[in-house]
Amino acid sequence: MKLWDKGIKVNDKIESFTVGKDREMDLYLAPFDVLGTMAHITMLESVGLLEKEELQKLLAELTNIYKETLSGDFVIEDGIEDVHSQVEMMLTQRLGDIGKKVHSGRSRNDQVLLDLKLFIRSKIQEVVNGVVEFFEALQTQSEKYKDYLIPGYTHLQVAMPSSFGLWFGAYAESLTDDMFMLNAAWRISNQNPLGAAAGYGSSFPLNRQLTTDLLGFDNMNYNVVYAQMGRGKTERNVATALSSVAQTVGKFAMDACLYMSQNFGFLTLPGELTTGSSIMPHKKNPDVFELIRAKCNQIQSLPGTIALITGNLPSGYFRDLQLIKENFLPAFDDLISCLDLATFAVNNITIKKDILSNEIYKYAFSVEEVNKLVLQGVPFRDAYKQIGGLIEDGKFEPELDVNHTHEGTIGNLCNDAVKNKMNNLLKSFNFEKVADAIQSLSKN
Amino acid sequence: MKLWDKGIKVNDKIESFTVGKDREMDLYLAPFDVLGTMAHITMLESVGLLEKEELQKLLAELTNIYKETLSGDFVIEDGIEDVHSQVEMMLTQRLGDIGKKVHSGRSRNDQVLLDLKLFIRSKIQEVVNGVVEFFEALQTQSEKYKDYLIPGYTHLQVAMPSSFGLWFGAYAESLTDDMFMLNAAWRISNQNPLGAAAGYGSSFPLNRQLTTDLLGFDNMNYNVVYAQMGRGKTERNVATALSSVAQTVGKFAMDACLYMSQNFGFLTLPGELTTGSSIMPHKKNPDVFELIRAKCNQIQSLPGTIALITGNLPSGYFRDLQLIKENFLPAFDDLISCLDLATFAVNNITIKKDILSNEIYKYAFSVEEVNKLVLQGVPFRDAYKQIGGLIEDGKFEPELDVNHTHEGTIGNLCNDAVKNKMNNLLKSFNFEKVADAIQSLSKN
Amino acid sequence: MKLWDKGIKVNDKIESFTVGKDREMDLYLAPFDVLGTMAHITMLESVGLLEKEELQKLLAELTNIYKETLSGDFVIEDGIEDVHSQVEMMLTQRLGDIGKKVHSGRSRNDQVLLDLKLFIRSKIQEVVNGVVEFFEALQTQSEKYKDYLIPGYTHLQVAMPSSFGLWFGAYAESLTDDMFMLNAAWRISNQNPLGAAAGYGSSFPLNRQLTTDLLGFDNMNYNVVYAQMGRGKTERNVATALSSVAQTVGKFAMDACLYMSQNFGFLTLPGELTTGSSIMPHKKNPDVFELIRAKCNQIQSLPGTIALITGNLPSGYFRDLQLIKENFLPAFDDLISCLDLATFAVNNITIKKDILSNEIYKYAFSVEEVNKLVLQGVPFRDAYKQIGGLIEDGKFEPELDVNHTHEGTIGNLCNDAVKNKMNNLLKSFNFEKVADAIQSLSKN
Amino acid sequence: MKLWDKGIKVNDKIESFTVGKDREMDLYLAPFDVLGTMAHITMLESVGLLEKEELQKLLAELTNIYKETLSGDFVIEDGIEDVHSQVEMMLTQRLGDIGKKVHSGRSRNDQVLLDLKLFIRSKIQEVVNGVVEFFEALQTQSEKYKDYLIPGYTHLQVAMPSSFGLWFGAYAESLTDDMFMLNAAWRISNQNPLGAAAGYGSSFPLNRQLTTDLLGFDNMNYNVVYAQMGRGKTERNVATALSSVAQTVGKFAMDACLYMSQNFGFLTLPGELTTGSSIMPHKKNPDVFELIRAKCNQIQSLPGTIALITGNLPSGYFRDLQLIKENFLPAFDDLISCLDLATFAVNNITIKKDILSNEIYKYAFSVEEVNKLVLQGVPFRDAYKQIGGLIEDGKFEPELDVNHTHEGTIGNLCNDAVKNKMNNLLKSFNFEKVADAIQSLSKN
Repeated sequence: MKLWDKGIKVNDKIESFTVGKDREMDLYLAPFDVLGTMAHITMLESVGLLEKEELQKLLAELTNIYKETLSGDFVIEDGIEDVHSQVEMMLTQRLGDIGKKVHSGRSRNDQVLLDLKLFIRSKIQEVVNGVVEFFEALQTQSEKYKDYLIPGYTHLQVAMPSSFGLWFGAYAESLTDDMFMLNAAWRISNQNPLGAAAGYGSSFPLNRQLTTDLLGFDNMNYNVVYAQMGRGKTERNVATALSSVAQTVGKFAMDACLYMSQNFGFLTLPGELTTGSSIMPHKKNPDVFELIRAKCNQIQSLPGTIALITGNLPSGYFRDLQLIKENFLPAFDDLISCLDLATFAVNNITIKKDILSNEIYKYAFSVEEVNKLVLQGVPFRDAYKQIGGLIEDGKFEPELDVNHTHEGTIGNLCNDAVKNKMNNLLKSFNFEKVADAIQSLSKN
Repeated sequence: MKLWDKGIKVNDKIESFTVGKDREMDLYLAPFDVLGTMAHITMLESVGLLEKEELQKLLAELTNIYKETLSGDFVIEDGIEDVHSQVEMMLTQRLGDIGKKVHSGRSRNDQVLLDLKLFIRSKIQEVVNGVVEFFEALQTQSEKYKDYLIPGYTHLQVAMPSSFGLWFGAYAESLTDDMFMLNAAWRISNQNPLGAAAGYGSSFPLNRQLTTDLLGFDNMNYNVVYAQMGRGKTERNVATALSSVAQTVGKFAMDACLYMSQNFGFLTLPGELTTGSSIMPHKKNPDVFELIRAKCNQIQSLPGTIALITGNLPSGYFRDLQLIKENFLPAFDDLISCLDLATFAVNNITIKKDILSNEIYKYAFSVEEVNKLVLQGVPFRDAYKQIGGLIEDGKFEPELDVNHTHEGTIGNLCNDAVKNKMNNLLKSFNFEKVADAIQSLSKN
Repeated sequence: MKLWDKGIKVNDKIESFTVGKDREMDLYLAPFDVLGTMAHITMLESVGLLEKEELQKLLAELTNIYKETLSGDFVIEDGIEDVHSQVEMMLTQRLGDIGKKVHSGRSRNDQVLLDLKLFIRSKIQEVVNGVVEFFEALQTQSEKYKDYLIPGYTHLQVAMPSSFGLWFGAYAESLTDDMFMLNAAWRISNQNPLGAAAGYGSSFPLNRQLTTDLLGFDNMNYNVVYAQMGRGKTERNVATALSSVAQTVGKFAMDACLYMSQNFGFLTLPGELTTGSSIMPHKKNPDVFELIRAKCNQIQSLPGTIALITGNLPSGYFRDLQLIKENFLPAFDDLISCLDLATFAVNNITIKKDILSNEIYKYAFSVEEVNKLVLQGVPFRDAYKQIGGLIEDGKFEPELDVNHTHEGTIGNLCNDAVKNKMNNLLKSFNFEKVADAIQSLSKN
Repeated sequence: MKLWDKGIKVNDKIESFTVGKDREMDLYLAPFDVLGTMAHITMLESVGLLEKEELQKLLAELTNIYKETLSGDFVIEDGIEDVHSQVEMMLTQRLGDIGKKVHSGRSRNDQVLLDLKLFIRSKIQEVVNGVVEFFEALQTQSEKYKDYLIPGYTHLQVAMPSSFGLWFGAYAESLTDDMFMLNAAWRISNQNPLGAAAGYGSSFPLNRQLTTDLLGFDNMNYNVVYAQMGRGKTERNVATALSSVAQTVGKFAMDACLYMSQNFGFLTLPGELTTGSSIMPHKKNPDVFELIRAKCNQIQSLPGTIALITGNLPSGYFRDLQLIKENFLPAFDDLISCLDLATFAVNNITIKKDILSNEIYKYAFSVEEVNKLVLQGVPFRDAYKQIGGLIEDGKFEPELDVNHTHEGTIGNLCNDAVKNKMNNLLKSFNFEKVADAIQSLSKN
């Protein structure tokens, strides 16, 4: 079934090519398509384009369909082009001709725009939850291991003393910066495109403020041409926010792989979290971290893929935009699984103690010795040369203690201040308002 | 001169390769390097690492150097490795040994981190100004030409009536979404990394809150390992915000090029804004829009370039990070020039009138006719088929008027509401606080 | 079942995350895995690591399994990690302990390297076939419509006369350049990695030249560390070749979409090759070309995705490399379907005649008029100014004929010479040698 | 001066924006522009569009200008738009009106197409030379250190024995695969676009075969629309070939950085090839390898940048294409410098001996022990479990010898066979033919 069927049969080859994976992808959008339709018809009734009684019947049936989408019973039947057609067809089958009325004043273009916005809102909330869990795991380990030193590297060369407290805590703070990006993505997405129709609005007297309120949106994409132009652009900006999180998680995985190498030996995972080799009986490989890293890199390729698909296209809808769904929709669950597995691995990780007693890390203390001279009044550049001379002559024998007390350093991690940042960022999302609106709408 | 000279001459080939374009790039950072040094030594004095009198002499001389950086008189001399070395050398030449004391408690790593943050803040403000000017030009044209219709396209096929009001206004609203990204970039950048030293802090009793306040930062990158990890990551997130703006400006340029083609003929530029051909005497080419588009695409490649350079690097400083400057620092001025030229072109553009009277645009009114039937009580799907039949039989003769009244459509552009969005977004930047801090600091 | 099972149960969460889509992806590789095993064990027997009788039994059973992979009956069973384990398990189930011997002297690392090479060879041949069919369709239309003029554009401005002959022919010639890339991809892929084991070879006395010959490879990846290093790198170079083809096909689709717009009207597709709109009854949209364009752009993002996944990884195998399969393996069929649909559409396209009689294309003849003056002896720059003056004064009235006779222009398309290029390129692939080798091997 | 000056002054802002960096970039192209003009006018004379005497005067003066371009005396003067205009203006200034005749039958569009092809040919030859030098340095070290073992890693976990012979040799072989890509780039570029004019040919009776022969091209881009379409596409395909080389060099640098870390300690560079830290007196950092890595990554971003600039543009020239020069032209010298520095570093590198005697590498020998059991008749899977058990119980005590004899492994590096591959690849470039043609042409 096609909503635009005009009696000319589409060639099978074209049909199969153009439908592509749309039916599979549209399942991600199904509950949101139903919610959007509920809001739309509530508005249609308010402006006289539906009877009150029709509205009630339609809402009741949509509530049923909504439950099916949540329980996994909803399917897009063979021969049905997409989720929009499926929902309209189910209404028509179950309620007769009034099912045909739900599409007044909208197009599939603004319908899918809306579905995507609602989907994104829902998934950003899941991502934020995953971020918070990973954040807490990292901070917990940071506090737990704050007294255990490791060498800090620059250029992969032993540089200065660091600690597990700093290392875990650094990734926690990295997530707070990612939250700024997620928040921008949220605010861009939390605006209502419904009413844009095919990108040029409608001559029906729609009330777009009403659907904005019903769906719990912060605001509206006013200009209908812009509402349509948001397609592709919204996905891309959201994808950059996911990429920001992925960058943090992937980098953590890279560090973990390095630190699990026998040449570092800073970390181990329990056997049941590692995998083996088909020919080397001794191997316990950190595949979990490698796959987190790889998936996070895959996610980071998403903005570029969307940029290539949408690049240099003029304004107005193009079918190209549909293809973005294939890359975009599954990316959220990929990122959420990476966050979940990273949290799981961090919670199960074992650290090595007394790392810095190894002779190869001795020079990590050279700046400490320079600084001691400075505190005795030697100008910095002269102290630097003096210690450099001792090292060159093989006479450098540092004390292996550290005394870093300023904000954010070994002896003063400031994890609480970082947690405070995170909490403030969390407050900048209005998840409750959205939840309330969706709750009201779907309780019809 | 090298701050790390230990008496071994670096091989010339290595020297030339490793310095690369750093000295050229560092000129972008010079004023910020001086400001950062002012804040750093003010703090050093407060914790007893400088005498008050030393501080005063140093601040006075730094104020001189700051003026040189603003007037363009500042140069990085031959044989001097970078801006950090140049400033330290100038202080030492002019003031003697106390010049050597300014580097206590910091490394070039956190120094360049700080310079970049200050540079980014300054440039984001310029970008925001450019965005606002382009926004205003677009809204002005939108209001001016709100009654002039053009065809709206989907799939590049004539679809429904649109207007110059909608078209110009759409790009104005697009800029509001870009502002969410710029704001995230601003908030990520507006945090103080100074004190991270080489990424592992210092054993000096630094007061990082003091430098945070002196430089007008919102907050601090607390964890010193994270502060260092922000290198590359900050640039990349900022680059995605620039890309978001570039996407809007580039897409507008694409539309403009299309609409200036003889096959559309919607827009013209005055002759003095076009360029000619070396063999075709009739050509008046929209090179300005093409180069805006191309530069905007170039800018959009920046996040990917940074991702490739930083991808899969473990934590800790690497020299690779320095190379990002070559792509990153000039990108701001490129974007600002695109915004400037786009504003200039929009202000000088001429639109064609009576476009829709051309017969090829007739079918743009098909939905209007469908909707009229719907308002008379015909179910939408049936009305759709009825009008479709008339079109198929060549009997479709629409009335050429439009009556779109809902929010954001031809008859109700809501430019004021969009302007309101923009104004609210502008308030979310605290430019004044930053300006006040920089003012105080540089007035020593 | 895991080939590396050592009695420690892997955590379920880790298991599910690390297996990911490998089992689905490995179905692409199944027939090639079987062929590779055939060659490997034939070699093992030749160096005394298998009995002749064992070899015969194994080859007979592998021939059965090979047929299952081709008929679609082959499945990777629940609990079996990958295709390599599945094949080994089937052999062991059906033949007993000798099944366990096939893995001697190899690792899954070189096994999957080999599978990928064989898969790529097979798919490049399919792509080449698709390229040739599209090439022929384009050349056919070029010849058929060589006398039909269209305006040629620069800057999307009407520039000079062109023709459908030139336009179709241009894309045919573009494919010849793509074939250089495909040939490089072929030659890189047509080298044997088997014997590299886990990337460090084997202490067994393997005969790698024998497997090279048995599998019809041109050459060997000699160095075992390099053979492993080819993972990721091979996929990426092959992906750039696919991208080159995709660039041609996608650009053709862009042109076609533009030329099908009412504002150009150069081309139409029959109704059954177009799609409609859910609200606009008049629409006949070129979705097929839009989706070709979008998919071709998606394919062009593949090298970048692989670059991000593999970027900055040191040498040696990483699990990250497995993830590339998800993006890489399906890309061939995507490109092949684009070539197929583009060929189909080109064969069914209708062109418009007498396009240049439209007044808006008049100035396309300005250079013709300049050239006439030049042939009368006027210096080029002076002739240019003279005609430019007529145009400026509105007095330009050109003759609407063209007389382009040099190589590759309207009156002398040189399609035969281009076809000759294509034929020479085709000869540079040694498909027959490969086919013969595979035929011999699988006929056991 | 503008070749297309029609008396309307271009607005200064537009002028400055559109010229951009063209004058700086065009210096890369200057000698090739002159050579192309020599070939073009030789052809013009042959078809009667120039007098023999005019040709001789012009060729003589062009020979002078050519020498200026090679000696660095050639400049693009203020107010002159580009190299094409500069050369034409110099001819006119020095020889009078006959200078104006050289542009007959061509456009700046095909002129720059030609310049780029000639530039690319010349630079690919330089890159190939750099590749060969790096290749030889790597093979030399491979042979020199073939008996020195290192651990081989998978998943960054100690896996099996490897050697410096294998490691250096692997990167040499990697370069042979890159040569396939360079050769494809060469063959794509070594085709003559001259005569395409603005992309639609000329009504002059040009003889394109003559310029093809004069410039030593293999072939012609016949179809003039395709010749123009090659702009952007050629640069992108060439850029992927550069990326392939960059991938090899960058990965080598990554390995080198890792192996120079104190945690590996496999390699050292002499002090004069390292750099220091401004605060840590002990540091000897491998900045040279880090910058090679970073530049190689920057180069690898080039195809993506070009893809974004050219993506979804229809056929025909656009000014956007000019901007590609900024990223593309300097990339060759960047890559050449990376090859040069990598060669220099490899020639100066010191390896550590007796690495494998360290206890942490013990398990690298586990497969050796498994294989010994297999050679005694134990099925592979059973031997694997037996050794796995010993390791698990802490009873694994391997012999530390290796006996790898098959092709491409520790005891049989096959460097000669790899060198043979390289030599065959080198022959597939016809550098001599090109050199001879350029020699003849410029000797006028």
